[in-house]
Amino acid sequence: MSAKQLLDQYRPMVEAALAESLPSGSETPSRLREAMQYSLMAGGKRLRPILVLLATEACGEHPSAALPAACAIEMVHTYSLIHDDLPAMDDDELRRGQPTSHVVFGDAMAILAGDALLTRAFEILASEVSEKTAAAECCRVLAAAAGSEGMVGGQVADLQASDAAPDDLEEPIRLLDAIHLRKTGRLLACSLELGAIVAGADDDIRRQLGHFGQQIGLAFQVADDLLDVVGDASRTGKAGGRDAELGKWTYPALVGVEESRDMAARYIAGACEALAPLGDTATPLVTLAGFIIERDH
Amino acid sequence: MSAKQLLDQYRPMVEAALAESLPSGSETPSRLREAMQYSLMAGGKRLRPILVLLATEACGEHPSAALPAACAIEMVHTYSLIHDDLPAMDDDELRRGQPTSHVVFGDAMAILAGDALLTRAFEILASEVSEKTAAAECCRVLAAAAGSEGMVGGQVADLQASDAAPDDLEEPIRLLDAIHLRKTGRLLACSLELGAIVAGADDDIRRQLGHFGQQIGLAFQVADDLLDVVGDASRTGKAGGRDAELGKWTYPALVGVEESRDMAARYIAGACEALAPLGDTATPLVTLAGFIIERDH
Repeated sequence: MSAKQLLDQYRPMVEAALAESLPSGSETPSRLREAMQYSLMAGGKRLRPILVLLATEACGEHPSAALPAACAIEMVHTYSLIHDDLPAMDDDELRRGQPTSHVVFGDAMAILAGDALLTRAFEILASEVSEKTAAAECCRVLAAAAGSEGMVGGQVADLQASDAAPDDLEEPIRLLDAIHLRKTGRLLACSLELGAIVAGADDDIRRQLGHFGQQIGLAFQVADDLLDVVGDASRTGKAGGRDAELGKWTYPALVGVEESRDMAARYIAGACEALAPLGDTATPLVTLAGFIIERDH
Repeated sequence: MSAKQLLDQYRPMVEAALAESLPSGSETPSRLREAMQYSLMAGGKRLRPILVLLATEACGEHPSAALPAACAIEMVHTYSLIHDDLPAMDDDELRRGQPTSHVVFGDAMAILAGDALLTRAFEILASEVSEKTAAAECCRVLAAAAGSEGMVGGQVADLQASDAAPDDLEEPIRLLDAIHLRKTGRLLACSLELGAIVAGADDDIRRQLGHFGQQIGLAFQVADDLLDVVGDASRTGKAGGRDAELGKWTYPALVGVEESRDMAARYIAGACEALAPLGDTATPLVTLAGFIIERDH
């Protein structure tokens, strides 16, 4: 099965769960619900939630048990995009070919919709993961991956790195890796770990899956930087060359396009090695890993 | 014991726990940690965390068991203040007599510091509440109180209400109550519930404590509106008359200063009635409730 077929097979289950995951009561102001839904249901590859489901399956459990965790991780990813796109941050007006949240709903509502999605992620984990020790552990792992030592910390480091000019080559690459490990790698690693926790996997398997997620996260970021340079805006849904325009450090800018491609391939190889102990049940994860460096959007 | 003595007695325990509650590892960028700390350690009455401790004590447990929950609720309160103060929201430059987060650290860092504090609150509950079923329940209750059906929903309703002009008197008062139940009441009710959950209290007691919190929350908001009209800026640390300037609906603007004072007193009376089943152990909570309408900052 190709990565595209695999994603197409699991995506409907994720979309259906996401559509049911927002609060439906009258207590949520309708405009806030619209803003949450607008970003959460804006499509995208659903890579993170599908990784949660595949990790649970690789550990021998039915993927449906992992749907609350899958929704939670996609909510955290979505909130981070809404806040990153704000004028005070990256000031992006287009995301997946659509106007970003603050363009449609205004800055205040975009900030609050992001806050509400982040909060809802923990509510879903705490209330819908049926085994309560696992529910608490899911909350802990997600918070650690998303917070100041993880994704938010990476975003801050990214903002700060843009302010400084690189002097020698080793330092910026080390810094870029450190930024992306936190900004992208931690949340991808967390996707795999959540799947393992829900499945009741042992610590070793959980660690191997987490390492896989971290390595594909680094590959993902290199691939993202490459798409910004060589991608087709009609497919990526983003204006190209934004990174250079913003004076952001990127892998292609630092080491060139070819070496960036090699780096991504090395990260993917490292990721797949980590799955060896799982045997055949991890084949779909290996397939998805390949997709990360081949995708064109 | 007076309310002031009570607050002075419990505050040092809260301050010490808060000072230890932020991530100390090198993974958190130092500027982000500074921004989180700047707002979290900016003083204030520490009403919410002290209510958590007193609720745990009222249920017969030692308050130290409730310190993680106390820190978590103060982090959520602090994040909401940071985001509310942003130029895109209320655009406040002064809070507790100090420049607000975005004035000191910039808008991007203020958004991210808020995000990180909200996330850290769940990490602390999930990892430091020792009984894991209670930990998951704490996460669930906090998320429900803070999210789109609670505090964030109330903030959205507040922003929207300011846009509309009241036509008859009943409607805006009903709306104001609905806004403040979510914006202030839910998080105060949550403080009491967290204390009850940590203490392993039964559902009845937990519900009574929650009702107490909700009612003092309404009283608190009326008192806050009154302070904006009649308060002394040198004590409140806020510029007076901001609400009127922003065209916000307030209780004094709608029903006058005297009737607002009566409303606050009625809410406090209702709150204290709810504590009857707890007997003498709830006396400190009754004392604190009185403070809410007597405070001058």
